[in-house]
Amino acid sequence: MSAVGLLGEIADVGRDRSRGGYSRHVFDSAEGELRTWFTEQAGRRGLDVETDRNGNLWAWWGTPGPGAVVTGSHLDSVPGGGAFDGPLGVVSALDAVARLKESGVRPRRPLAVLVFAEEEGGRFGVPCLGSRLLTGAIDADRARALRDPDGVTLAEAARRMGFAPERFGRDEEALSRIGTFLELHVEQGRGLVDLGSPVAVGSTVLAHGRWRFTFTGEGNHAGATLMTDRHDPMLPAAAVVSAARRIASKVAGARATVGRILPKPGGTNVIASTVDLWLDARGPARPVVDEIAEVARQAAADEGCEVRLTEESFSDTVTFDSGLRKRLRDRLGGVPELPTGAGHDAAVLAAHVPAGMLYVRNPTGISHAPEEFAEDDDVEHGVRALTETLGDLST
Amino acid sequence: MSAVGLLGEIADVGRDRSRGGYSRHVFDSAEGELRTWFTEQAGRRGLDVETDRNGNLWAWWGTPGPGAVVTGSHLDSVPGGGAFDGPLGVVSALDAVARLKESGVRPRRPLAVLVFAEEEGGRFGVPCLGSRLLTGAIDADRARALRDPDGVTLAEAARRMGFAPERFGRDEEALSRIGTFLELHVEQGRGLVDLGSPVAVGSTVLAHGRWRFTFTGEGNHAGATLMTDRHDPMLPAAAVVSAARRIASKVAGARATVGRILPKPGGTNVIASTVDLWLDARGPARPVVDEIAEVARQAAADEGCEVRLTEESFSDTVTFDSGLRKRLRDRLGGVPELPTGAGHDAAVLAAHVPAGMLYVRNPTGISHAPEEFAEDDDVEHGVRALTETLGDLST
Repeated sequence: MSAVGLLGEIADVGRDRSRGGYSRHVFDSAEGELRTWFTEQAGRRGLDVETDRNGNLWAWWGTPGPGAVVTGSHLDSVPGGGAFDGPLGVVSALDAVARLKESGVRPRRPLAVLVFAEEEGGRFGVPCLGSRLLTGAIDADRARALRDPDGVTLAEAARRMGFAPERFGRDEEALSRIGTFLELHVEQGRGLVDLGSPVAVGSTVLAHGRWRFTFTGEGNHAGATLMTDRHDPMLPAAAVVSAARRIASKVAGARATVGRILPKPGGTNVIASTVDLWLDARGPARPVVDEIAEVARQAAADEGCEVRLTEESFSDTVTFDSGLRKRLRDRLGGVPELPTGAGHDAAVLAAHVPAGMLYVRNPTGISHAPEEFAEDDDVEHGVRALTETLGDLST
Repeated sequence: MSAVGLLGEIADVGRDRSRGGYSRHVFDSAEGELRTWFTEQAGRRGLDVETDRNGNLWAWWGTPGPGAVVTGSHLDSVPGGGAFDGPLGVVSALDAVARLKESGVRPRRPLAVLVFAEEEGGRFGVPCLGSRLLTGAIDADRARALRDPDGVTLAEAARRMGFAPERFGRDEEALSRIGTFLELHVEQGRGLVDLGSPVAVGSTVLAHGRWRFTFTGEGNHAGATLMTDRHDPMLPAAAVVSAARRIASKVAGARATVGRILPKPGGTNVIASTVDLWLDARGPARPVVDEIAEVARQAAADEGCEVRLTEESFSDTVTFDSGLRKRLRDRLGGVPELPTGAGHDAAVLAAHVPAGMLYVRNPTGISHAPEEFAEDDDVEHGVRALTETLGDLST
């Protein structure tokens, strides 16, 4: 079955009726269903599936061991995300392996399809959690204690799904098997539309991080409290939303977004007592966040509120392996190279092993939303490029 | 058992572990438990409990009929609310009836303790829903179609709890029984602290309403979308938060609050596609909302977003019955009168029957939050005042 057919098979899993699109989060029922489905699909293609210590799935062609050519992506989504971000790389990998097998290729190195857990950080807040745990980029104790919006820890959620969170952490054995990692992904901007190409090789990934602002004021009655008597944490929170736009707009290459804000208790007729707000910043992120934090402190002080700032994750700029990039471009007949503002597991692995990416054109330029898309023809171009390069790398 | 003892009995029902305080919402399990508890307590005091067509509970002393003296309040709360807002009026009413019975009073009119459903609008958004339905102040079809944050309609929620939503609507028979309505309530500001009095008679209720702003932009990836390419509905939403403070502060007697905001999909690494935001405005609310709406429209246009404004509820200024106020003041030895910015079922009933209120001092001045409080001595003052006035009105 082709990559397009495989995407069709999971088109009903994890649909989000209220947001639109998909909500598939690590260790929830939709993501569990996708794990089962992947295991079955890999089995049909003669691959042996194992789960590593951190909940990532590996489907092996050949005996697991050092020097393996590994490809894959993730199956989880942001809340209300699109159908392609993650799954496209997984189904393209399954399709490419099947094509290599059908064409009688006999790899000289082991080949594996890898599905990373919690790439989006959609449930526990830290993106690329599976690859960060695998490489030791996040401390296992810190990861286990992460909480979802309902207060469930990662450790508890993992245990409920039959995983062993006490084994989470840097996995030397798994990491040592990866000779090369290649991730195919739908593009998340309009780069390939502008270039008029269905496929590109990834060059760099923007630095990116997540910061949480917690404003604390005084919860009170919305009608009985005079305007002059208020300590309303929504005021400094609103100042941060405006400041993020203003400050990031004047710094070349910077991005700053507030897409999640949670006033407590969250009643219409209640002045909030606290507001949590998450800032996603990219590019020259730290100086931008410093400047936004200064606005937050001033606005909180003006309102008689407190503010606490926590860095939840940070990943510096990544440039993918130049030798691998050249090999991919040469093999694919000079396809363009493309930088991205989106984070990926390949960028986490890049600090440890030669890693690279292939992007497939997204005609809408929209991602993390139901409008995210890839034409069937472009998906086919992507699968062919992946098949070609996996064949090259593994033989 | 005294009012203080009765409050102690329900101190564990509906505690909100994440917000603090209580979350007791109409037709949820905590509110159901409180209904059962109330029915049992009323029975112990020899009262006959019936539920009216709109889910309000009536506990009768004497044969239900016209000219009744009715007192009560509500048992639901805002999300994360205090222990007194609502329940204090209910337990004081039960306590007062018991004292009248013990003292051998024989009322010449029927007397009832009334518990209104969904006073806070904490689940379905419209405050005083039980009294609005009873009096026909809200259309029954509109009410049945109201949805909670999970998308459940009022009709569905009612049916699940064994109520018959098809019977919702103006209840001529129930309304015609009320000769006088008197609601005792914890004060929600510092009025009685400043006056140095444990109890006051209500004079006026500020006009109040709720408006929902829905901003629609373009959901997209927080990293891959340039700052210049965004249509982010969080920006005009933040402008409304700031404008509400600025505009209400310059209009005498006005209040404006944003305590609830919901970006969708609500992911940290996702530019929101829509943001719902609720504005609570009081006093000269409509001109204030008009001015805030103008800011919203301009800010939405600047960002390439759409905005839709919906009035979810509005109640004009209410002045309680002057004859009843005088009678209460005379009977209670000249206690002070107090206006309030908080809405109450008594204010909804005031358009139909002589209605009045008694307030009990709140030493923190805070309400709709766990810090809401009343000293035992002040609760006792309140019960005595209520007993006194009920005795006066019913004999």
